[in-house]
Amino acid sequence: MSNMSRTAGRHFLQIPGPTNVPDRILRAIDRPTIDHRGPDFGALGRRLFAGLKPVFKCSGPVIVYPASGTGAWEAALVNTLSPGDRVLMSETGHFATLWRGLAEKLGLKPDFLPGDWRHGADAEAIAARLGEDKAHEIRAVCVVHNETSTGCTSDIAAVRKAIDEAGHPALLMVDTISSLASIDYRHDEWGVDVTVAGSQKGLMLPPGLSFNAVSEKALDAHRTAGLPRAYWDWTAMLKANETGYFPHTPATNLLYGLAEAIDMLQEEGLDRVFARHDRHAEATRRAVGAWGLEVLCLDPDRYSSSLTAVLMPEGESADRFRRIVLDAFDMSLGSGLGKLADRVFRIGHLGDFNDLSLAGTLAGVEMGLALAGVPHEKGGTQAAMDYLAEEARAAVKETA
Amino acid sequence: MSNMSRTAGRHFLQIPGPTNVPDRILRAIDRPTIDHRGPDFGALGRRLFAGLKPVFKCSGPVIVYPASGTGAWEAALVNTLSPGDRVLMSETGHFATLWRGLAEKLGLKPDFLPGDWRHGADAEAIAARLGEDKAHEIRAVCVVHNETSTGCTSDIAAVRKAIDEAGHPALLMVDTISSLASIDYRHDEWGVDVTVAGSQKGLMLPPGLSFNAVSEKALDAHRTAGLPRAYWDWTAMLKANETGYFPHTPATNLLYGLAEAIDMLQEEGLDRVFARHDRHAEATRRAVGAWGLEVLCLDPDRYSSSLTAVLMPEGESADRFRRIVLDAFDMSLGSGLGKLADRVFRIGHLGDFNDLSLAGTLAGVEMGLALAGVPHEKGGTQAAMDYLAEEARAAVKETA
Amino acid sequence: MSNMSRTAGRHFLQIPGPTNVPDRILRAIDRPTIDHRGPDFGALGRRLFAGLKPVFKCSGPVIVYPASGTGAWEAALVNTLSPGDRVLMSETGHFATLWRGLAEKLGLKPDFLPGDWRHGADAEAIAARLGEDKAHEIRAVCVVHNETSTGCTSDIAAVRKAIDEAGHPALLMVDTISSLASIDYRHDEWGVDVTVAGSQKGLMLPPGLSFNAVSEKALDAHRTAGLPRAYWDWTAMLKANETGYFPHTPATNLLYGLAEAIDMLQEEGLDRVFARHDRHAEATRRAVGAWGLEVLCLDPDRYSSSLTAVLMPEGESADRFRRIVLDAFDMSLGSGLGKLADRVFRIGHLGDFNDLSLAGTLAGVEMGLALAGVPHEKGGTQAAMDYLAEEARAAVKETA
Amino acid sequence: MSNMSRTAGRHFLQIPGPTNVPDRILRAIDRPTIDHRGPDFGALGRRLFAGLKPVFKCSGPVIVYPASGTGAWEAALVNTLSPGDRVLMSETGHFATLWRGLAEKLGLKPDFLPGDWRHGADAEAIAARLGEDKAHEIRAVCVVHNETSTGCTSDIAAVRKAIDEAGHPALLMVDTISSLASIDYRHDEWGVDVTVAGSQKGLMLPPGLSFNAVSEKALDAHRTAGLPRAYWDWTAMLKANETGYFPHTPATNLLYGLAEAIDMLQEEGLDRVFARHDRHAEATRRAVGAWGLEVLCLDPDRYSSSLTAVLMPEGESADRFRRIVLDAFDMSLGSGLGKLADRVFRIGHLGDFNDLSLAGTLAGVEMGLALAGVPHEKGGTQAAMDYLAEEARAAVKETA
Repeated sequence: MSNMSRTAGRHFLQIPGPTNVPDRILRAIDRPTIDHRGPDFGALGRRLFAGLKPVFKCSGPVIVYPASGTGAWEAALVNTLSPGDRVLMSETGHFATLWRGLAEKLGLKPDFLPGDWRHGADAEAIAARLGEDKAHEIRAVCVVHNETSTGCTSDIAAVRKAIDEAGHPALLMVDTISSLASIDYRHDEWGVDVTVAGSQKGLMLPPGLSFNAVSEKALDAHRTAGLPRAYWDWTAMLKANETGYFPHTPATNLLYGLAEAIDMLQEEGLDRVFARHDRHAEATRRAVGAWGLEVLCLDPDRYSSSLTAVLMPEGESADRFRRIVLDAFDMSLGSGLGKLADRVFRIGHLGDFNDLSLAGTLAGVEMGLALAGVPHEKGGTQAAMDYLAEEARAAVKETA
Repeated sequence: MSNMSRTAGRHFLQIPGPTNVPDRILRAIDRPTIDHRGPDFGALGRRLFAGLKPVFKCSGPVIVYPASGTGAWEAALVNTLSPGDRVLMSETGHFATLWRGLAEKLGLKPDFLPGDWRHGADAEAIAARLGEDKAHEIRAVCVVHNETSTGCTSDIAAVRKAIDEAGHPALLMVDTISSLASIDYRHDEWGVDVTVAGSQKGLMLPPGLSFNAVSEKALDAHRTAGLPRAYWDWTAMLKANETGYFPHTPATNLLYGLAEAIDMLQEEGLDRVFARHDRHAEATRRAVGAWGLEVLCLDPDRYSSSLTAVLMPEGESADRFRRIVLDAFDMSLGSGLGKLADRVFRIGHLGDFNDLSLAGTLAGVEMGLALAGVPHEKGGTQAAMDYLAEEARAAVKETA
Repeated sequence: MSNMSRTAGRHFLQIPGPTNVPDRILRAIDRPTIDHRGPDFGALGRRLFAGLKPVFKCSGPVIVYPASGTGAWEAALVNTLSPGDRVLMSETGHFATLWRGLAEKLGLKPDFLPGDWRHGADAEAIAARLGEDKAHEIRAVCVVHNETSTGCTSDIAAVRKAIDEAGHPALLMVDTISSLASIDYRHDEWGVDVTVAGSQKGLMLPPGLSFNAVSEKALDAHRTAGLPRAYWDWTAMLKANETGYFPHTPATNLLYGLAEAIDMLQEEGLDRVFARHDRHAEATRRAVGAWGLEVLCLDPDRYSSSLTAVLMPEGESADRFRRIVLDAFDMSLGSGLGKLADRVFRIGHLGDFNDLSLAGTLAGVEMGLALAGVPHEKGGTQAAMDYLAEEARAAVKETA
Repeated sequence: MSNMSRTAGRHFLQIPGPTNVPDRILRAIDRPTIDHRGPDFGALGRRLFAGLKPVFKCSGPVIVYPASGTGAWEAALVNTLSPGDRVLMSETGHFATLWRGLAEKLGLKPDFLPGDWRHGADAEAIAARLGEDKAHEIRAVCVVHNETSTGCTSDIAAVRKAIDEAGHPALLMVDTISSLASIDYRHDEWGVDVTVAGSQKGLMLPPGLSFNAVSEKALDAHRTAGLPRAYWDWTAMLKANETGYFPHTPATNLLYGLAEAIDMLQEEGLDRVFARHDRHAEATRRAVGAWGLEVLCLDPDRYSSSLTAVLMPEGESADRFRRIVLDAFDMSLGSGLGKLADRVFRIGHLGDFNDLSLAGTLAGVEMGLALAGVPHEKGGTQAAMDYLAEEARAAVKETA
């Protein structure tokens, strides 16, 4: 494909994270590193710890690790559980499966409620399983809020209700790696005990930071939890965080970016951020529908606003299609993961993103389908544009 | 329009320059400033002076000014002409008109061949006028290669031929501000004496640098030219440039960007750069046609590959339309200039740009037409996509 | 010198401009270019035009050119004078001499009051010459506030007084290229008509912008001034500037840096900026004295706070010394210019600079003197440190 | 201290890490994030894994974590050891003590050979302890190559020899967080099994990455090691790394910086990097001696070339002194850690650093001593300059 100008213009990074990092954040991480034990750093730290709470909608502490999201999963578990503890997990997709594997590696005993990778977590099944657990051996319920591999969300409020109605004392842990700051999420209101998050999606940062938002109940569990831990230890973190510092060297420059991200979210307003993601997701689904393709998620109430996974027609390779799109149009799409490998492609429409970039993205998908010879109807991009224009019209009217 | 998320995602800067500056160049100009009299600077300067020649397709010197393009116009005139000299100019549009005004301010006497702002320069009219000038009072013929206000190019080879066939000794000066490194241009082959260029279009730099590529004949004229000059003086420039330096302090950081731009053009290859611009221009015209709107340029042989000016339907305000596009979709389009004010909008598709960004751009125009209630047919973006996909297919086949 | 690590650590750019550009400004110019005709640009322009006034201490307009300082010299002259006009200039050094040459190239007739390059402009001589000019043929008095080639300032208030006492109507034009935002300067209070400035010194920007601050009287002169002008034309500039825009494409990204520079000056406070430069200049002179070397400037009242020019002992080559310093310590020092070539070296201590960087600079000079075998006494750096510590002590006491 | 210009000029970050990150690396991490599963990323990954080997002087794999150095300590232990395993550690200072605490938290049983925090690890004591361990219960010997809290190095070759002579099968693990790429280190030659390193010191990066270089023997131990692990798991890492990828999302932008750092080290040459650090350390010690102060490290053979810890005279507060230096001269010095709190200050002279920055650093210390009223002799900076000039002279001669 040597005659195409792959290098001209901006790459379209439309995987469901890492997302297109905005210039403001890239410039922020490009500032000189400072003394992580000096007064300027303490001021930065205090600002971050305060600024993160509204993003998680929590009143308790948010712990920040120099680590990927996987690290924050591990931190959630090792800080609250003991060897051999049972945890209840829902098979929502590839990342739920990975989390289960991680729990097993750490010596926990996951109950894995089966799923079809096309729905969110089944709150009724969770309620049922908890109801059977009269001895309260299950110490935690772990749910992925937004399954990055499938584009289905789980109803966390419903899961909370299921736990409450079962009168079960298990902790509720939620992975929001690809939903935080993209899809409405309420740590306190939904009674979540540990929220796990990462920097490289809705927070618009490069990867390298991850988070645990922690409830009082989780802190109580922490005090008696028996899994060995050092790097991830909340106690050491929380003590140092009180004055804005960290017990070991933090990823200073990524923290600069985090401060900028918090400012940007505040400037736009979280509600508008969520509305924007909803709009882009709906536009994307309209495109998929117009192409005659199938959205992987089967439950319209649980469509993800961060990404849309699209099923390839029978016999078509999603990976070949993605390669053609990358070669011809310099756009990265998400691959099918785990058992969905080569069967779906995923369109990320989260983070620092707008209507025209979405239109370019969908045009790239539509042209790629044509190039790859994938059976489809034309007109998806047009359908998305019709919707986006209508939404914009509504906005114009409101302020006329 | 307060409910729209204007701040999310990247701005679409689709005016016909300044263009979307690529990250590589922004990062380059962000490097520490160095001693403009030190050895590292001399090496940079020599690299630039050599690297610019293939971009202009010239073998003589290219002079670099810390100035806008207007400055390079002025430099071309004051270095080669004397007070009261006659110059022959073609009214191709707003910028040709401005250049005439500049010549008048400098005390020159422009003959301004009238034009309708919908065609390139008329080589036959130039030939005729030169033929009348038996006394060879006309000292220079000044033509805009690509009229940024209209999206029409002029046939420089034909102008050269006209001069030659008239046996006229006038210098040929060409403004390539919005064509250089976007549309094929050949300083030497076309016998141009002074080529005027700027940094902020096809060279992909921020504004702040401008250029004179200079022929032997222009240097001869320079020796006897009587207009006062100091800042713009070629003699001082050329002497200092010999060793890589400048007679006054150069815009060091923009020069870093220029070095990067030259590298990028070389990596992509000028022929591919031109082919990419041609492709995007054709796709844009197909969109305009599908919308049922009219391209301003009436001569298909002289369509610009840098920008497309689109006529608004009678009674519609182009400026209101542009404002709606800016507010709703965070895209800047070019305004109508001079007598075209409010009558046309201009789509810049030059510089560091690719198929998907063009698709997003055209989607923004199409949605904006709907929002603004401008009568049009849907389907322009689709038409562009059909063309782009077909072109990409051809490229794929070639390398299969 | 292959065994030295020239590439490690930061280069010391201790020429008297361009200066060490602070990271904040480099990052600012690294932002995406915007539409120079759009609303965001207008807001930026208005902010700049307002913010520049306190820097010049002027109430009238400040015009900003994409050009080097030489361009702003030219602008000052062509906007206010007519061919053949006499201008009175003072030979303070190399830059005054260059300015004279520029005036001559533009067709003006400079009277050049001779100087020894070791003092500022002689206000009495100016008064005398103006007194002789009964016909008021002299249209402008041009003085360099801070001679970058010698490190001597001129007393602008005294020059003003000389003009006033002579009852002479000549305009007063002052070059502040290496003094603005480093040494106290008062456009309005000193009755200056045109102040010429550049971006790359006290304003801490890369080179590429230059300035004319303009009085009412200068504007009056402008209306009848006969020198041809177009690019530099104040009328076109002022008209566009009214709403925050420019008549031709401005150097957008450097303007971002200018906005940042204005913020930084305001945050530090101009008085503290001046005090800092005074302190560093005094520390440098103490070092020079301790080395047993001679400061070029012979008038202690007119020592420059931006730079210090140091005379080499008889028979020693300043350029060889500077080359050794560059090779051994990766520091650029200013060369002797014009008739001072190879006789002096110049230490720039202006712009974004602090005590420890000055100490490193002086250590580099002192070590370089040793390496080059230049006769000198040790202890200059120590003398500077003694002074700097004493000054810091005073500051500590004030706030104790 | 309101009258000082704390904000002007560059901050001197002279803690012993994070170090002054060079612009090249800051700009590198400022590039757009890419798809961590795409082909460009794979190429980057493969380049990094190859490029790291010469830095560690190892032939086996180097594993890269998005984590601080503490994480890499944890990774070294959990990948190779089992609950209850004995490890032999040497109390070289604060970081050795922290590592012991970490081992305990993970359920290991450290033998902690006592030390006075003024020497490196005692190879003879290690040999003796291993000799007593007839049952080979000790599974690992853990040594800090360069104790960042004391400025003493440990002789790793001697430790290796001690293990070998004891015929003991324990693994050798070495913390090189503040020595790698600053002080000569030889993973293979010294028979180290796990080398622990971090990004923010000699590698000149911001914090956020850490490393395990791993021997065959360590990999063997890994296969049977019983500590739970998931995030840190070498097996998953090594499998993904084979093709240039990671098992979980890597810190892409810091990896860009790492690639740049490897290039910079290669360009300068590791031997020259080490010689530069040695030179700066010697110059610093000469300054300390001239001030009449005491270097904490008592063994001249084991002086650190990365940092120098200086004992405060009896009764003087190191923290007050450091605060004064920060307020008056905008320089961060390292604090005394653990039992050395307020008793020492530490001068970092590692990473991207040169002679003049060192001179500025020492001048800041010397002026700070004066300001703080700490009893000392003047002349330390001068002594350092004398040495640096002499060293530079030698270099000049070699190439004359």
